[in-house]
Amino acid sequence: MLAPGASIGILGGGQLGRMLSIAAARYGLKTHVFCPDDGSPAFDVAHAHTVAAYEDEVALAAFAESVDVITYEFENVPAATAAFLAGRRPLRPGLTALSTAQDRLVEKSFVAQLGIGTAPFAAVDSVADLEAALTRLGRPAVLKTRRMGYDGKGQAKIGVDDDAAAAFAAIGCAPAILEGFVSFAQEISVIAAFGDGGTFAAFDVCENTHRDHILDVTRAPATIAPATRDAAMAAVRAIGDALGYVGVLTVELFVLADGATLLVNELAPRVHNSGHWTIEGAVTSQFAQHVRAIAGWPLGDAASLGQATMTNLVGDDIDGWLELLREPGVHLHLYGKGKARPGRKMGHVTRVTPRPA
Amino acid sequence: MLAPGASIGILGGGQLGRMLSIAAARYGLKTHVFCPDDGSPAFDVAHAHTVAAYEDEVALAAFAESVDVITYEFENVPAATAAFLAGRRPLRPGLTALSTAQDRLVEKSFVAQLGIGTAPFAAVDSVADLEAALTRLGRPAVLKTRRMGYDGKGQAKIGVDDDAAAAFAAIGCAPAILEGFVSFAQEISVIAAFGDGGTFAAFDVCENTHRDHILDVTRAPATIAPATRDAAMAAVRAIGDALGYVGVLTVELFVLADGATLLVNELAPRVHNSGHWTIEGAVTSQFAQHVRAIAGWPLGDAASLGQATMTNLVGDDIDGWLELLREPGVHLHLYGKGKARPGRKMGHVTRVTPRPA
Repeated sequence: MLAPGASIGILGGGQLGRMLSIAAARYGLKTHVFCPDDGSPAFDVAHAHTVAAYEDEVALAAFAESVDVITYEFENVPAATAAFLAGRRPLRPGLTALSTAQDRLVEKSFVAQLGIGTAPFAAVDSVADLEAALTRLGRPAVLKTRRMGYDGKGQAKIGVDDDAAAAFAAIGCAPAILEGFVSFAQEISVIAAFGDGGTFAAFDVCENTHRDHILDVTRAPATIAPATRDAAMAAVRAIGDALGYVGVLTVELFVLADGATLLVNELAPRVHNSGHWTIEGAVTSQFAQHVRAIAGWPLGDAASLGQATMTNLVGDDIDGWLELLREPGVHLHLYGKGKARPGRKMGHVTRVTPRPA
Repeated sequence: MLAPGASIGILGGGQLGRMLSIAAARYGLKTHVFCPDDGSPAFDVAHAHTVAAYEDEVALAAFAESVDVITYEFENVPAATAAFLAGRRPLRPGLTALSTAQDRLVEKSFVAQLGIGTAPFAAVDSVADLEAALTRLGRPAVLKTRRMGYDGKGQAKIGVDDDAAAAFAAIGCAPAILEGFVSFAQEISVIAAFGDGGTFAAFDVCENTHRDHILDVTRAPATIAPATRDAAMAAVRAIGDALGYVGVLTVELFVLADGATLLVNELAPRVHNSGHWTIEGAVTSQFAQHVRAIAGWPLGDAASLGQATMTNLVGDDIDGWLELLREPGVHLHLYGKGKARPGRKMGHVTRVTPRPA
């Protein structure tokens, strides 16, 4: 268990690392952020930072030496980096969670083995594999690289008339997974914390809508049936338990048109964009909760404070910052990034309507 | 008006600077903390920090050069330092507020001239002055240094049998003020923001109790009559307007036994310990509000989210941190300070009971 004054190492210096670092500071914990990119947003609120490649073992060793526990803000931490660090300090969440979540094929196979629904899928390592998979799963379908995809990157949709070889080329002929097309009614996510000794605390299930493959709006709680909510929670708990998970885990799921059938879309072994509403919308934020979990501390109260809506500010959306500041009760968060490139997450706003007592 | 990405200079690196820095980061603003003490708590969450004396003009010039606006977390900024910086960058709150608040005699005279009640007072520069003042104001009375007093330091109570010369010696024969003894029923504070163009937003009036001359518990809202609340607000607004104030201003007042008479005890031209409850207890925290005000931004919604109680963790109180983490709904804040010396503010906890809708 960490004592106040202890230090948390964070791999990755983006907005998630930034908000984790702020949450740690609230608890009197120091952070050391490791990121290859100079001027990363999280550096502004960290006790220390290191700019180095994830393959730089001298820098990694010094980083590990300076902290008491290590976590990460993204699941694409190279396996060798994770293993190197895990040999020196507790890595939370651990190697199993990381290796499972960073490969779509491993992830889907793991979820399916637990008896939890996923979209139909098949491994694709060649055009021949892809042709066979298309025959089995039908069209349309989505071809995704097994690794390193996010926000719609590394994906190719294959329609009725599309050429399989062209699609495989479009994702760089990388090891891939073909996923059968799922017509879903809602996309939801469950963000839950797994603490030391098997403790568990989930936030309200929330509901997500996307724009150009990037999360646009999250609403909490999701408008789903109580039985669906309970089933989603049970699935997430089973996934975390099977991974021996410590920390905050995010699971994205599809709800089909019957309102009851759930398919796991993706795991993220970390705090998540769809959990930003918890900063003002829950008693404990996802960031504070993750810090508590990896510190070995008792988990906080995950209850909601009302109905929350989080809207991302992507690219030029940030130009509306002053207008947003003028709107009573809007909580504006900006990430301290430089240029507002299209598709770049620059900030978010959260609106909370208190729940009637 | 500051744009996102701009930089705020903060004089002082304690817990107030730390919480200001976190609030600024939430809005995508950078901070540069200037403090003579190595390892100051605010450094952990600042983009940049300078360790130098407040008299070091080379360091001050470089500090001013690196930021867009300058503020402070304590009112005892040396006058020369403040003037030096104000010549280079906007200093908010300004020199008038600072010079008024850092001298008890100037402060009380200023308040009295506005027609707002204070304890009876007299200037004391010698034992002869003190004897005359005691004759006029009566005993018991409290002798206080004009400058640099806080948390009961620089004060001597003079009872019926106490020797005036000894009391003057006890405060180092410094320029002083004698205050007539006030028997009050409650101590309250008003924390309010003054924005650009005369905008004003006050938090709920709160009520304070002390232990060993250090703030112990703050409750918001205070249990006072609506007319008393309105009178306190009006006094604070008049004070801020007369000072041409920009930023968050704190005014401590005594409520006498009639429940109606108000006497101003002290001004603090800054965020204040008795406003920590606003982090979870109000829509906008005092720290976020101060940042908005000094940035020239629209003020935020200062409405409360319920009934809040803030309790300081002083000295050994911090040993209870784990027990506090176990209590549902308690918001624990630790300041990242090293040793828990007696009287040292190490953190605080806030409990909020949501207000029925």
